Amino acid sequence: MSEGSALNPGFSVTTGPLPSSRKIHVPGVLHPTVRVAMREVDLAPSAGEAPVRIYDASGPYTDPAVKVDVHAGLTALRRDWIAARGDVEAYEGRPIRPEDDGGKAEGAANLAEFPQSSRRLPLRAKAGQAVTQMAYAKRGIITPEMDYIAVRENLGRDAARASGQVRCGESFGASVPDHVTAEFVRDEVARGRAVIPANINHPEAEPMIIGRNFLVKINANIGNSAVSSSIEEEVEKMVWAIRWGSDTVMDLSTGRNIHTTREWIIRNSPVPIGTVPIYQALEKVGKPEELTWDIFRDTLIEQCEQGVDYFTIHAGVRLAYVPLTLKRTTGIVSRGGAILAKWCLAHHKENFLYTHFEDICEILRAYDVGFSLGDGLRPGSLADANDAAQFAELETLGELTKIAWKHDCQVMIEGPGHVPMHKIQENMTKQLKICHEAPFYTLGPLTTDIAPGYDHITSAIGAAMIGWFGTAMLCYVTPKEHLGLPDREDVRQGVVAYKIAAHAADLAKGHPAARLRDDALSRARFEFRWRDQFNLALDPETAIKFHDQTLPAEGAKIAHFCSMCGPKFCSMSLTQDVKAAAEAGMADMSEKFKEKGAEIYLKAEAAD
Amino acid sequence: MSEGSALNPGFSVTTGPLPSSRKIHVPGVLHPTVRVAMREVDLAPSAGEAPVRIYDASGPYTDPAVKVDVHAGLTALRRDWIAARGDVEAYEGRPIRPEDDGGKAEGAANLAEFPQSSRRLPLRAKAGQAVTQMAYAKRGIITPEMDYIAVRENLGRDAARASGQVRCGESFGASVPDHVTAEFVRDEVARGRAVIPANINHPEAEPMIIGRNFLVKINANIGNSAVSSSIEEEVEKMVWAIRWGSDTVMDLSTGRNIHTTREWIIRNSPVPIGTVPIYQALEKVGKPEELTWDIFRDTLIEQCEQGVDYFTIHAGVRLAYVPLTLKRTTGIVSRGGAILAKWCLAHHKENFLYTHFEDICEILRAYDVGFSLGDGLRPGSLADANDAAQFAELETLGELTKIAWKHDCQVMIEGPGHVPMHKIQENMTKQLKICHEAPFYTLGPLTTDIAPGYDHITSAIGAAMIGWFGTAMLCYVTPKEHLGLPDREDVRQGVVAYKIAAHAADLAKGHPAARLRDDALSRARFEFRWRDQFNLALDPETAIKFHDQTLPAEGAKIAHFCSMCGPKFCSMSLTQDVKAAAEAGMADMSEKFKEKGAEIYLKAEAAD
Repeated sequence: MSEGSALNPGFSVTTGPLPSSRKIHVPGVLHPTVRVAMREVDLAPSAGEAPVRIYDASGPYTDPAVKVDVHAGLTALRRDWIAARGDVEAYEGRPIRPEDDGGKAEGAANLAEFPQSSRRLPLRAKAGQAVTQMAYAKRGIITPEMDYIAVRENLGRDAARASGQVRCGESFGASVPDHVTAEFVRDEVARGRAVIPANINHPEAEPMIIGRNFLVKINANIGNSAVSSSIEEEVEKMVWAIRWGSDTVMDLSTGRNIHTTREWIIRNSPVPIGTVPIYQALEKVGKPEELTWDIFRDTLIEQCEQGVDYFTIHAGVRLAYVPLTLKRTTGIVSRGGAILAKWCLAHHKENFLYTHFEDICEILRAYDVGFSLGDGLRPGSLADANDAAQFAELETLGELTKIAWKHDCQVMIEGPGHVPMHKIQENMTKQLKICHEAPFYTLGPLTTDIAPGYDHITSAIGAAMIGWFGTAMLCYVTPKEHLGLPDREDVRQGVVAYKIAAHAADLAKGHPAARLRDDALSRARFEFRWRDQFNLALDPETAIKFHDQTLPAEGAKIAHFCSMCGPKFCSMSLTQDVKAAAEAGMADMSEKFKEKGAEIYLKAEAAD
Repeated sequence: MSEGSALNPGFSVTTGPLPSSRKIHVPGVLHPTVRVAMREVDLAPSAGEAPVRIYDASGPYTDPAVKVDVHAGLTALRRDWIAARGDVEAYEGRPIRPEDDGGKAEGAANLAEFPQSSRRLPLRAKAGQAVTQMAYAKRGIITPEMDYIAVRENLGRDAARASGQVRCGESFGASVPDHVTAEFVRDEVARGRAVIPANINHPEAEPMIIGRNFLVKINANIGNSAVSSSIEEEVEKMVWAIRWGSDTVMDLSTGRNIHTTREWIIRNSPVPIGTVPIYQALEKVGKPEELTWDIFRDTLIEQCEQGVDYFTIHAGVRLAYVPLTLKRTTGIVSRGGAILAKWCLAHHKENFLYTHFEDICEILRAYDVGFSLGDGLRPGSLADANDAAQFAELETLGELTKIAWKHDCQVMIEGPGHVPMHKIQENMTKQLKICHEAPFYTLGPLTTDIAPGYDHITSAIGAAMIGWFGTAMLCYVTPKEHLGLPDREDVRQGVVAYKIAAHAADLAKGHPAARLRDDALSRARFEFRWRDQFNLALDPETAIKFHDQTLPAEGAKIAHFCSMCGPKFCSMSLTQDVKAAAEAGMADMSEKFKEKGAEIYLKAEAAD
């Protein structure tokens, strides 16, 4: 399968299930071909509890029943659904040019080319057709994608209801339903309150939804500026990011092999892929002021044909807003924002993404690529948070949202950045109002500037809060932010920090099933089911590694205490005694206790 | 100096300044002998900025002018201030017994004994005297400690005022002043809204304050249950924790050498030391039900004489509250709480810490040991947050606060635990009301239960929020929480995560000078002063290490870009161009730009 590829023929990615986890497939409600992938964690028999179902973004890589071959790409899960709608056509597509891969010499063969690419014809909407999930939703059509999402988002709600758990939370006006129907999904997409990033040329992706009334999602950024060999690293980073729970991945590559790297990523990605097309357009011309609409348009089509699911488009960086950034402490920190600002000033013209916005809508609508309207003027420091430049751009994004919706295009709005805690809620409130409830997609925000090396933490604080307030997707920040490119371990740190933030937000919003996993893990903790505690953790590998650093013996994993307190001081163990004693009746407590004899602590034989 | 010690004679701890940092000493306002230690970070000459002053908890260990000898202990900074008040007396003190170190055979020499201990007589209040900072404050006396604290807390405010920075924040009713006077410190202590943990037998400590109207503080827990050799590790952990900014340290040791370990820590600690005396009392008797008031009282005096600055006392775990925990998911997770609950049930009697509370006050008052009223019934899982048991105990802590204040004892209130975001604010609101604005001191709270291995992050989210709402001190959680004992690196991770939370809280409260460091670092970032960015970071070592992983060359530290984007995509670099262009006048922008010529990017020669 690897003929034609100069990548290491042994190139493979991380596969295999997480500990005690099985891949299951739950059937759709309306569409017979829908089979929704989930993870089920088996607990120890002593628990007497059903397996815990967990939302699973990891795709076939964690399914031992699937033979993964990165040189062949994933199965096209959605191919038949797309074809069955009868509104798309295959066509020859735009030829791949040397400059697509960053100025390679004309005619040079790209040895890293994805093997299957040449055999694949792109799809586009037939003339006059709108093939976006929003277009279907507005027409009252429930697609298989919506059916898939309803089942996926509904995970745990029946169990929560059965357990009698009372919903509790503060949703700040969100409308998270007790039960998610496909009709609800359709309605939210039709209203623009949620997006389903699902390019018809990325049929490998498992449908997912981003919206305030669904589970809070996270995105991981990957991408390199380096050499061809890094394609393997970037594909592995994508697989690694989704293994730990990233819901979408943005490929922010800026160097050579930009087209080919993206092709490998998309063909192997079960999650939606986002990009910032202006990066590649700039690679093609070299300087911001040489960017043209034609170059940009051509890049959009190139990426639409490849299957990118959403584009960051910095159409809100208007010429008139640039002077608003002059007194800032950190100016413009968005790369795209800086590129467009430079273009505007060099030509003294309005941003061409703004003036051509309806043209862009026409293109994106033909492939169902979602807009992620970029916040090119986001603050890069606390000093610049919530300033005139930032909110001026937001007004424009609100205006553009309406235009995109008119074209049946799906829209998310990108948000900051660096924001102190007391200024976070204003961002959410304004965004909901100005952008007509289109989903908010924020980077962090970072709540202080003084911790380079730990910005996954400074920003997880802000992300949890803004997620609670209503942000639909949180773009991760890794420990390398401001310092360097994230490696594989940084990706894990960033993803886990953001899974924490997103889950904390779901809990605080009062998501009806969010606490099931917390409760199952807490019961395991209280009952000294160590293995269950590890297996239910966001990162079982790290949990078990940390445990083993102090008590490596296998016996310690069934011990009724841990290394923090030892057997004599274990509050959990003491409490179980207390509970037993108290349940025996408070009145004759003292006598009963003495009768029980001295053996109130569990033996420590497994400790050493 | 190390005669009599069986510890490694070469035993030493981490010393030396942080990069580009100098120790400075700022004179007190009222007391001529007060010299307040601070850190000053020098910036690159190109910055044209004054050095940045930073609150410094690290003590003499970061002062090259001080020769540190852990076998001799630190200089007794406060000795003369204490003596000058004329209200204390030295006395023979309680003899150290073998059981103080965990059941060592009678008469066996303790080879690890701190060399100076035998030469030191403890102090106590003369009969009828109250020697607490609260007693002085109530009598209108401004102590040197209060003068020291006023200068220390005032750090940066003059600079902030001079810069014309407008205060901005939401303090939820706190009264953080524009300028901190010693009189303000006195008044806050007199009202019980702040505490100065300052045992007269710990004269080595630099005065600091814990209260809602001061900088948010953090505590690091250390302590082991292991063997004598670990004394060295624990002393190093203390030094390491304060190097990264921990404001107090709790020694939670539970094993052998508990007395001796504590002695080494206190004699070498420039920050207040807290303990949970019930742990040592339990070591002496072996089982919770065998605890007696006499054993406990004796342990209190032992630790008062050593110099512990605050005690966690679980006097709120009343017999009647224990049944309220029976339906909990995770019962009682506080060790102290579980021990006392067990005692109450075994004897079917009211908690002896509650019945002897006034006796405890009398002891603590004679040494100025502060109360940290323990939340023995804090929730150990989201399922148990804000429940009847937790809030019943809080009511009792409020009642005890009044009693302690009657005895002129200083009081903090401990708080949870595991709490989802939407239930955090209720904890703060209730605590302020029920406990009469005594400082709140919380563990986290953890905002989800599903991330063992990352609980420094799950809890930093909750800590930042509750700090913002008004918590005065945040007890750190390390990545090892729930899994094992923290090692040195875990201590760093926990401390830095909590410095982030505390600082984010200060910023959001609108502390008048908190943003100075953020702004200085952000300017350094924008101007590509890499060294300044590292040096102003909470953890310069990690920042520089991460940077060097991608761009190790020395030249990269003066480059006008970084590894994330490379020279062509650098938004900061582009923005500087934009700024220059825009400032030249918007009208003739285009022409000016072209005149400037093509060289808009800085060369990348340092990149490889």
